[in-house]
Amino acid sequence: MGRRYHGVAASDGIAIAPVFVVNAAVKNVEKREDVTVEQELSKLEDAIARTKAELQQLYETANQKLGASHAQIFVAHLQILDDPEFVGAIQSTMQTEHVNVEYALTSVTSQLVAIFEQMDDEYMRQRSSDIKDVSQRVLGHLQGTSRASLAALEEPVILVAEDLTPSDTVVLDKNLVHAFVTDVGGRTSHSAIMARSLGIPAVVGLGEISQAVEPGMTVIVNGLDGEVIVDPTPDELAMYRRRMEEDANQRQQLQALRFEPTVTTDGHQVELAGNIGGPADVDNVQENGGEGIGLFRSEFLYMNRNAAPTEEEQFQAYREVAERMAGKPVVIRTLDVGGDKEIPYLDLPKESNPFLGYRAIRVCLDTPELFKTQLRAILRASHYGHIKLMFPMISNVMEIRQAKQLLKAVQSELRDASIPFDEQMEIGIMVEIPASAVIADVLAQEVDFFSIGTNDLIQYTMACDRMNDRITHLYQPYHPAILRLVKMVVNGAHQHGKWVGMCGEMAGDLTAVPILLGLGLDEFSMSGGSILRVRQLIRDLSYERAQALADEALKQDSQQAVEELVAKWSSH
Amino acid sequence: MGRRYHGVAASDGIAIAPVFVVNAAVKNVEKREDVTVEQELSKLEDAIARTKAELQQLYETANQKLGASHAQIFVAHLQILDDPEFVGAIQSTMQTEHVNVEYALTSVTSQLVAIFEQMDDEYMRQRSSDIKDVSQRVLGHLQGTSRASLAALEEPVILVAEDLTPSDTVVLDKNLVHAFVTDVGGRTSHSAIMARSLGIPAVVGLGEISQAVEPGMTVIVNGLDGEVIVDPTPDELAMYRRRMEEDANQRQQLQALRFEPTVTTDGHQVELAGNIGGPADVDNVQENGGEGIGLFRSEFLYMNRNAAPTEEEQFQAYREVAERMAGKPVVIRTLDVGGDKEIPYLDLPKESNPFLGYRAIRVCLDTPELFKTQLRAILRASHYGHIKLMFPMISNVMEIRQAKQLLKAVQSELRDASIPFDEQMEIGIMVEIPASAVIADVLAQEVDFFSIGTNDLIQYTMACDRMNDRITHLYQPYHPAILRLVKMVVNGAHQHGKWVGMCGEMAGDLTAVPILLGLGLDEFSMSGGSILRVRQLIRDLSYERAQALADEALKQDSQQAVEELVAKWSSH
Repeated sequence: MGRRYHGVAASDGIAIAPVFVVNAAVKNVEKREDVTVEQELSKLEDAIARTKAELQQLYETANQKLGASHAQIFVAHLQILDDPEFVGAIQSTMQTEHVNVEYALTSVTSQLVAIFEQMDDEYMRQRSSDIKDVSQRVLGHLQGTSRASLAALEEPVILVAEDLTPSDTVVLDKNLVHAFVTDVGGRTSHSAIMARSLGIPAVVGLGEISQAVEPGMTVIVNGLDGEVIVDPTPDELAMYRRRMEEDANQRQQLQALRFEPTVTTDGHQVELAGNIGGPADVDNVQENGGEGIGLFRSEFLYMNRNAAPTEEEQFQAYREVAERMAGKPVVIRTLDVGGDKEIPYLDLPKESNPFLGYRAIRVCLDTPELFKTQLRAILRASHYGHIKLMFPMISNVMEIRQAKQLLKAVQSELRDASIPFDEQMEIGIMVEIPASAVIADVLAQEVDFFSIGTNDLIQYTMACDRMNDRITHLYQPYHPAILRLVKMVVNGAHQHGKWVGMCGEMAGDLTAVPILLGLGLDEFSMSGGSILRVRQLIRDLSYERAQALADEALKQDSQQAVEELVAKWSSH
Repeated sequence: MGRRYHGVAASDGIAIAPVFVVNAAVKNVEKREDVTVEQELSKLEDAIARTKAELQQLYETANQKLGASHAQIFVAHLQILDDPEFVGAIQSTMQTEHVNVEYALTSVTSQLVAIFEQMDDEYMRQRSSDIKDVSQRVLGHLQGTSRASLAALEEPVILVAEDLTPSDTVVLDKNLVHAFVTDVGGRTSHSAIMARSLGIPAVVGLGEISQAVEPGMTVIVNGLDGEVIVDPTPDELAMYRRRMEEDANQRQQLQALRFEPTVTTDGHQVELAGNIGGPADVDNVQENGGEGIGLFRSEFLYMNRNAAPTEEEQFQAYREVAERMAGKPVVIRTLDVGGDKEIPYLDLPKESNPFLGYRAIRVCLDTPELFKTQLRAILRASHYGHIKLMFPMISNVMEIRQAKQLLKAVQSELRDASIPFDEQMEIGIMVEIPASAVIADVLAQEVDFFSIGTNDLIQYTMACDRMNDRITHLYQPYHPAILRLVKMVVNGAHQHGKWVGMCGEMAGDLTAVPILLGLGLDEFSMSGGSILRVRQLIRDLSYERAQALADEALKQDSQQAVEELVAKWSSH
């Protein structure tokens, strides 16, 4: 048997390919004092010039492939190379200590990093990783082992690294990089998010995998189960090749449904949409037959940057998505920050229970300038497609009214400036806090639609942090209380003629879908890769039978009983 | 005006008295090398002997006044004085360095404390504060400034200290100590809990108050608002004396209701019970006319110790409460640890969101030996009074079944050993997780009663950490969703002939009580000091009108609307 490693399943799919080790650790730098200072100064100048050219190139690639907001990181890196505190310190170290440039560079870097890491401020701490990233890039140019070689891959590989930096992932060619495997990270780390958005398998948080492989070794990455097999046996290879083939066959069959409606055998139609983090994810939704964007997580535009995106940057991103969806609905969720999503420059407080803390709409209503910039960008983009606006983490009616008040103010500014926007744009809320589900009938009178966020709704309803390993058994999507809350939300909305979607993981879960359909959900939004399988399932179901199933499910006493019920029901 | 300081209101009431400063900081210790080692060794021996005698005395006082579990701390302190690593190190420091005993003691203490404080283990870190506590006591005996002078107070005082150690609070005479005031601490710190349990006012977390007063200065402590006035003016004194008098008058009037039933003008009767942390709190409930104990927070038996209480210790505590309540019901909640309640020796994991984590029944079902010891102690005590058993943090039916399974096993062990217990003991659960409230009709079939824990129920339903300063406006007891959930719980219980109580802060809240009464709550459990005021309120209400109020409240769209409704209703 090949050696097996278990990590966090960060992105679906299976890949088999030779290892390409991303060498983060540059060769040890020796201190030399027999140098000519002038020569060393000119080496530095040269390496900085090459690094700048490289960063400029990376910026352009990223801007083109992923949009301005993803490219922002390279602007920050370029700024570091223009910072006299950094470059000046290296130069003066060489001049006063007569040491070689590599030594001066690493010693200044580690001093700066140590200073930044001690700071209390999240933003400054993040700067320290930027400095490390840039410093390694300069050192690469000094040593001729540039990380940029990643951009020059010619054969299919599986990347193995301690971690992948944003500047690594931005230049990857997904036709050649068949999977990622990293020592550190979790499902929400940068590399995991990138893997999902590129649609390639990834396993992260594997511990010491980067030490356990040699370049060229064959590796199987099973992104479904979070498993990595190093040096697989012929049997293992054969088995996984078979699984890849089955996967591919199934995918091909499903492709036939790409442009079909999602309609039950007895004629009840629902909408299947995709969840995205930015313009780069639109392709994946369209290739999988998404009938709209059910959740545009706008917080991704705010991440991996040094300052909030400008109105113009946001406008471009929203407009691009709206235009590419060509009239199909795009639900943009306003900034959902806090909880497990940190955005250093917003300088949010440390909290004992961040999931129960200062998050999303709570932050936005408190920082109206930040919020209004986003609202202006969304409104402006609404002129170019079919945009709907959605507020996250609503727990009471006052928050909706406050948010709508701000929106009104922005609308009237735009009218005064004769900037066009969609006057009919629908306004909705995420229902992800139990309080909102319980008074859905009241809230429905304030909005045009609901989208149920099951990830949070389950975690609050069960008082169970979904990231906490000790209590995973209590994170129960099929707990009858969850189903009853969904029912309350659907009834509350329909009673007032409003539509209800769902954009949590549950919407793409094949066990849950028949019940959710039966409960009367109008829209299901999920990651692109799940859409066609859900469509296939729903097209085989009768709505009447699904309604009967849902009625039964609501009466069960436990998640286990619901699971048994669905299993029995499905086998008939 | 006197100088005003604001801190955390830790325990209700107003007090005016001269300051008594508890001098934690012992005079600076000088290093002397002109000593005779033999003399120093014998000084140490003498001081240790006195300290041991003092600790023994404190142990007995505490055991008598507060029970074995509170006294446990002194056993731990005695053990330190028998520990060769501690005493031996002091002796050998004197022998090798020829230094004075005070210096050797403080230098060994700070070395040990530094070692323990660096340890990753909570339990070991707590040991470091025990060592400091003991060391200061020995130093006091060496210097003739013993903290034990606290036990020798003769006049009424207000204690001012940086912090009060458990060994301080244990020896206090509440007839002489009229209030506490401390620099550090919060509502759940040891001194705050002790103040509430002794029924004396306290303000904690004041910053530098211990530096700002001189012994003998007059101070006003306002434990209702968390305010302390140092050197008050005659006007301020007169005003607060008037408030104290009004308080006293009101209290006297309320005393007339001590043995009256809690019955509405139209004859609907409910039960008012008290919440306690241990036998020491029973007096306070009885003096305030409590008709039972609605919540015995058994976790207090587990706190401030080095190991879990034995079955026998627990049995004694439960039996004492049951006997003193003389046939009135005593609801014992099984161990509720985790969240914000740390018990170091249980060695629970650090969590990102402890309120959504590994807590209470989740821990108990996972550590059946710990749990069964408690169940045996409760069952044995049930023979001596009217005990009911309650499981906390239940989120699904499986947890109830597992807990009852363990209970059954313990019952059959007791039967086999011919140990008597109440075969009819009622079994209930806390309803404090939204999931349980939503399926209360299902859970009612598994238990004899519910008690609604509003503190947690509100925090999960609103996704709002009640300790988080930034979002206090979202901790909304009167949010219509909370009221609807209470209604679901009451209906679910009554539908199956079970009774429902409430033991969160809300049960003693005069705004909430009319609605809760109208919703059909059978029992209200609160801190002793609130019982008579709630009784007075309910005896003035008509049940029919309260029901109409509750029906209206359920239809409101916000907490604000509910508050306005109650205000209008009350004024008619």
